[in-house]
Amino acid sequence: MRVDVTRRNDRFLLEAKNEAGNTFILDNSPDGGGDGAGFRPMQSLLAAMAACSSMDVISILKKQKLEPFGLTVSVEGERETGKEANLWKTVHATFIVTGNVPKEKAERAVQLSLEKYCSVSMTLRAAGAAITYDVVMR
Amino acid sequence: MRVDVTRRNDRFLLEAKNEAGNTFILDNSPDGGGDGAGFRPMQSLLAAMAACSSMDVISILKKQKLEPFGLTVSVEGERETGKEANLWKTVHATFIVTGNVPKEKAERAVQLSLEKYCSVSMTLRAAGAAITYDVVMR
Repeated sequence: MRVDVTRRNDRFLLEAKNEAGNTFILDNSPDGGGDGAGFRPMQSLLAAMAACSSMDVISILKKQKLEPFGLTVSVEGERETGKEANLWKTVHATFIVTGNVPKEKAERAVQLSLEKYCSVSMTLRAAGAAITYDVVMR
Repeated sequence: MRVDVTRRNDRFLLEAKNEAGNTFILDNSPDGGGDGAGFRPMQSLLAAMAACSSMDVISILKKQKLEPFGLTVSVEGERETGKEANLWKTVHATFIVTGNVPKEKAERAVQLSLEKYCSVSMTLRAAGAAITYDVVMR
């Protein structure tokens, strides 16, 4: 698996590209000398966790023939402060599920993902983050 | 810092959005039932590391008045196998620098970033990844 990241202006604008040619833009915040025109790197870790866990949940609920359903995951986190590198300290994910899915099945899928299968959440946990979640049916 | 990830089709296509309204697309591989239309979650960790380190390097070289210079970081990694969650085991980053930058200054900036300042590389390290790099002047 290979990713290329290339500087795209004279500040901090960066373009990431994978082998399939998919791209996304990362940027520094205006505080840090950037233009806020893309994801910040640590922010994209939260996106990756939400996405990895969404894929697990979709996969588990698909196998249980619970389609169609909708899913949004909102993730918020708090970083360490005062160190040279400030890692994620707490991360909370709210899973909002729409459709005809029994709440306990959605909760079980989220739990299996965040505590067992999701490589991104296991990475953040191994690096010291406390990960919590809740599931909302709408 | 908040990120929302929303399912966008009946398979695994996901859209991540940050508070500033920036978005990017994540997807599962065709092997996993997706369409390969976006970054895979674990792939976006490599992008985040390359971006975070690029921003450090840009910042350090800017302070040394070494602009203008170009930068591309190519990252490749190998994941664990056979576990329930397979984390990054090895990650290698090649920094390709163009412009009038002394190689030792570029190397020192990369080293400071990957071993000290870059929160994403420190996250991956804390989760067990061995991170190596090289710097190429072009």
